[in-house]
Amino acid sequence: MSQHVSIDRTRSAERIGRDIETLAGPAYTSSERAICRYAYTDVYRNTLDYFRERLGELGFRVYEDPVGNLVARNRPPGEPVFGLGSHCDSNRNGGKYDGTMGVVTALEVCRLDAELGLGLPLQLISFLEEEGSGFGQMLLGSRIVAGRVTERALRQDVRAIDDGRSFWEHAEEAGYQPSRWPECAAILDDLTGWLELHIEQGRVLQDAGHRVGVVSAIAGYVHADVEVRGRADHAGATPMDLRLDAGTVAAASLLELQRLARRANEKVPTVGTVGEVSLDPGLINVVPGGARFSLDIRGVDDRVVGEVFHQLSGFAHERAGREGMTATVTERQTVPVTPMDARIISALEGAAGRAGEPYTVLHSGAAHDTMSVAGRVPAGMVFVACRDGVSHSPEEEARPEDAAVGAEVMLNAIAATTES
Amino acid sequence: MSQHVSIDRTRSAERIGRDIETLAGPAYTSSERAICRYAYTDVYRNTLDYFRERLGELGFRVYEDPVGNLVARNRPPGEPVFGLGSHCDSNRNGGKYDGTMGVVTALEVCRLDAELGLGLPLQLISFLEEEGSGFGQMLLGSRIVAGRVTERALRQDVRAIDDGRSFWEHAEEAGYQPSRWPECAAILDDLTGWLELHIEQGRVLQDAGHRVGVVSAIAGYVHADVEVRGRADHAGATPMDLRLDAGTVAAASLLELQRLARRANEKVPTVGTVGEVSLDPGLINVVPGGARFSLDIRGVDDRVVGEVFHQLSGFAHERAGREGMTATVTERQTVPVTPMDARIISALEGAAGRAGEPYTVLHSGAAHDTMSVAGRVPAGMVFVACRDGVSHSPEEEARPEDAAVGAEVMLNAIAATTES
Repeated sequence: MSQHVSIDRTRSAERIGRDIETLAGPAYTSSERAICRYAYTDVYRNTLDYFRERLGELGFRVYEDPVGNLVARNRPPGEPVFGLGSHCDSNRNGGKYDGTMGVVTALEVCRLDAELGLGLPLQLISFLEEEGSGFGQMLLGSRIVAGRVTERALRQDVRAIDDGRSFWEHAEEAGYQPSRWPECAAILDDLTGWLELHIEQGRVLQDAGHRVGVVSAIAGYVHADVEVRGRADHAGATPMDLRLDAGTVAAASLLELQRLARRANEKVPTVGTVGEVSLDPGLINVVPGGARFSLDIRGVDDRVVGEVFHQLSGFAHERAGREGMTATVTERQTVPVTPMDARIISALEGAAGRAGEPYTVLHSGAAHDTMSVAGRVPAGMVFVACRDGVSHSPEEEARPEDAAVGAEVMLNAIAATTES
Repeated sequence: MSQHVSIDRTRSAERIGRDIETLAGPAYTSSERAICRYAYTDVYRNTLDYFRERLGELGFRVYEDPVGNLVARNRPPGEPVFGLGSHCDSNRNGGKYDGTMGVVTALEVCRLDAELGLGLPLQLISFLEEEGSGFGQMLLGSRIVAGRVTERALRQDVRAIDDGRSFWEHAEEAGYQPSRWPECAAILDDLTGWLELHIEQGRVLQDAGHRVGVVSAIAGYVHADVEVRGRADHAGATPMDLRLDAGTVAAASLLELQRLARRANEKVPTVGTVGEVSLDPGLINVVPGGARFSLDIRGVDDRVVGEVFHQLSGFAHERAGREGMTATVTERQTVPVTPMDARIISALEGAAGRAGEPYTVLHSGAAHDTMSVAGRVPAGMVFVACRDGVSHSPEEEARPEDAAVGAEVMLNAIAATTES
C-alpha cells in the first residue's frame, strides 16, 4: 500500500487557474467572444509554445511528432514513462476548459513531481486536433498515433473547414512532415500507463456534489442517418387519409428512440438522440414528402447499443412501410466501447480514497483521445465537474480547485502504479 | 329551367390543349425544365399578349388595370357582365396547368359564346402574381383588387424574391401606375357573378373517377410557428433523465396535430400539417436545445380550425412545461373560410347534371384568387382532376378533355345565372 502524497491544493489551483486564464488571452484564441484555437493556426502554435516553455523549465525534453502532437518527457527515449495529457485545441465556439484543463493539469502533475522530488517517470502529450474544428475529424491527432487513419485520408479526404485545402498541405505548411505520420505511433512506445483529466461535459458529478470522477469506460456509439420517402402534397388540398407524410415517421421514430434508450438504460447506461431533422421540401403549406434524421446511440455495452439501433431501424422501416412509405437507414460510424484499465481504475479509486475525496465512478458518454491510447496502453481518465454540464460553448465553466484535486489523485495513482 | 347548350368537347379539348402547350413553349417560360413565369418578366408579358390577341380576335375590349391584372370584356364599361378567369403566373418550379388552365378555359368559354352566338355578357380576368413566386405574396393581384393590401406594403415591404427591389419599383418599370392601385377595385364593379376553373391539386376527383368538381367553399386556415426552448447538451454525456430535448416536444406535437386533425375531420373536413421543422443547433451529437416547427391548419369551419389550433397550442405548452421547457406559439396569418355562393353552386350542379356529367361537390383546401373576389361578387369555382394530386411541380398533369367539360358546365351555368 502506497503512502499518500498530499499537495498544497490552494497553490495548485492557483497555478492551474493562472495557466487557464493565460491561455484564454488574445495570443491564444482567434476570437474575443469564445476560445477558437484550431490546429496549425498561430494561436495554436502559441499555445504549444506556452507548454514547451513551462515543461522546458521543469527540465523536460520537449518535441513534436511528425504531425504536431506535443510530447514532453523527463526520462531519455526508451525508458518507461507514465503518460498523461489531453488536447489544447478548442471547439469552433469553445470554452476555456475542454481539453486545455487536461493539459494544464498534466503540467501541474509534472510541476508537483519536480517540486516534491518524487522522481516519477512522466511523459506529457497534448494531442493535435481532438475537436475536429480545424479539419472536421474528431480525435485526429490521437487516431494518427493509433494508426486509425489512412494516408489517402490525410492526403486527400481530410480538408480544412475554412479553406478546403488538405490536412497534408496544411501540415507541411506548418513545418511538419506528414509523410512520416506512421512514426507518430512511437510516442506511445515507452508508456506504462496513461491518464487524461477532462471536464465531464455532463451533470453527473454536479448532481452528486463530487469534485472528481473516475471513468470506468468510454461509451461506444452508432451514428446513423434515416431517410424517409413519402410523397409531397398540397397541405390544404390533401385529406389526412390520402397523405404519405414523411415527417410523421421521423417524429414517431424520435419518440421511439427515446423510449428504447430509456428502457435499455434501466439495465446499462444508454442514451439515444435525434439531433438533426430536416423535412423536404420544408415549406409550411406542403406535406413533407421526405424526411431525414440522425441517430446517435451510445452506451457502455456494445450489444445493447447495437440492439437499440436494430430496434429503432426496425421501427422506422415498419412504420414507414405500414403507411406506404420507405425508410432507409445508413450507418455513418460505429465505435465500440473503450473500457478503462482495471488496474488504473483501482489506482485512481485508491488515491481518491486516501485523499479523503468523495468521487463518482462513471462512464464517459463523450469521445476522448484516451480511446486512441487505450488500444496500446493501460489507460484511465479523471473527470472534474463542470457547471450544468455546459460544454462546447464560451459559457463552459469548471473549477481549478477541482482540477487540483484531480492532480493530487493522478499524482498518487501514477506513483502507486509506477512503484508496484 | 334553362335549356342545355352542348358543345363539341373534342374541339374544345383540342383548343385548350393547344393553348396550354403553346404557353409551355420557350417564349412563355424562363426555364426549359419547368414553367417559370413571374409577374413583370418578359415571358409573363408574352403570356398576357397571347391572351390579348386571342380575346381581341373575339371582339373583346382588352385592357390592364393600373398594376397589370388583365381584363377583357365583350360589353361596354358600366354594363353588367359575368366574370371568369384565373391567373397565368406560375410557381417557382411550376407546371403547365396551375392557373393557366383556368385562364385558357375561360378563353374557351368566350370562344364558345361567340361561336355558338349565345351573346353572353362576359368579362375575363387574369390576375397578377397569384403564386407569390415573383414577390413572395400569394394572391397579390386579386388582393390589390379587393383592397386587402396597404400602400406601404406595395411601396416598401413587398419585394422581388430575385433582386430585392420593391413591387412598386418593378410595377413602374414594367410601365404600370402602382400609385393608382386603389382604382384596381373597379374591375369587379360590373360583375354579376364570378367563376374560376382550376386544377384540384388533390386526389379527390381522381379517386372518385370524376372529371369535374363543384367547389362548395375555400378552406380557411391558421398558419403559425411554435418555438420550443429546452437546453442543448452533449448527446453522449447527458443521461436521458437530465435532458431538456426540445425535439421531443416538436415530435409529439406533430403527431398530436395529426390526431386532432383526424378527429376534427370526422365532423367536418379539416387538415393539419407540420411542413417545417428545424432543430437548434442541429448536430448529430447535440441534444437539441431549441426546436421550431410550423402549423398549417385548414378546414371549412372556422370554429373547428380555431379549436384544433387552440388544442395543439395547449398540447405544446403543456408538454413543454411538464418537461421543464417552454413553447411559444406565434400566428403568422389567419384567413377565414370563403363559402361559395349558393346560387352559383346550384347553377354549376344544374349544368353538370344536364350535361350528364358526374361530379363531386368538394371544398378547396388551397387558396385561390376567388377568395379575393367572393367578398364583392357571388362566386364559384370548378375543379378539374389532376393526376395524383401533383401540383407546383413540372410533373403536374391535367386533361384538356376535362377542362372542355368544365367549359361546357361553366358556359351553361353562366347562361342560367344570366338569363334568370
